[in-house]
Amino acid sequence: MHNGGVTTAPTARDAVPEACCTSLTSEALSVEDAQRFAQLLKAVAEPTRLRLVSLIAAQDNKEACVCDLTEPVGLGQPTVSHHLKILVDAGILHREKRGVWAYYSIVPGALERAAAVLSPGR
Amino acid sequence: MHNGGVTTAPTARDAVPEACCTSLTSEALSVEDAQRFAQLLKAVAEPTRLRLVSLIAAQDNKEACVCDLTEPVGLGQPTVSHHLKILVDAGILHREKRGVWAYYSIVPGALERAAAVLSPGR
Repeated sequence: MHNGGVTTAPTARDAVPEACCTSLTSEALSVEDAQRFAQLLKAVAEPTRLRLVSLIAAQDNKEACVCDLTEPVGLGQPTVSHHLKILVDAGILHREKRGVWAYYSIVPGALERAAAVLSPGR
Repeated sequence: MHNGGVTTAPTARDAVPEACCTSLTSEALSVEDAQRFAQLLKAVAEPTRLRLVSLIAAQDNKEACVCDLTEPVGLGQPTVSHHLKILVDAGILHREKRGVWAYYSIVPGALERAAAVLSPGR
């Protein structure tokens, strides 16, 4: 792995938008919805990924490159890039390549929509 | 396994109450908070467990025994009881033994507090 870049495939990216309209307690979940929601929640249900999202949110400009994140989480660049790719694929993070680095930011509304799966009307 | 009963140990039960006060984006998460939140989210980040919570919420009286749940999810009683125990241990479900069956209900506020980890102020 070099310069922190990861390729982004939109595999599970549809999970977040679709999560807006059905929640866990509003009706009995279909097998398909349950699988989609579980995939979305699994993307964040991991300590390092939660910390990465949190660290990105805590940046002054709300974005970070891999170079900003390896030291705070105490992991190497390939591992951090792997976790970031999972979050991008789940639609939680946006990735933008600028120069030699990719910059990651939280997709507006993504965490709110993931939360809405668990609790629709807080 | 017999009569659907599971023993309830309060191993991860503290996760939900503590989740009320810190969220992913309000400050950079500590390692300990990240581990606790991931444990809580992992409890629900599984398709069958999402469906079980959803099915319990959809009952008229908002509670269900294992006998109500095996057929809708298409799994045997030991497997369903195993998933229910994970949700009880995470503080998402309450378990009450009455007669030969244990009845499961959603702990009031538990899903809201889990959602608040992801998104504090919707």
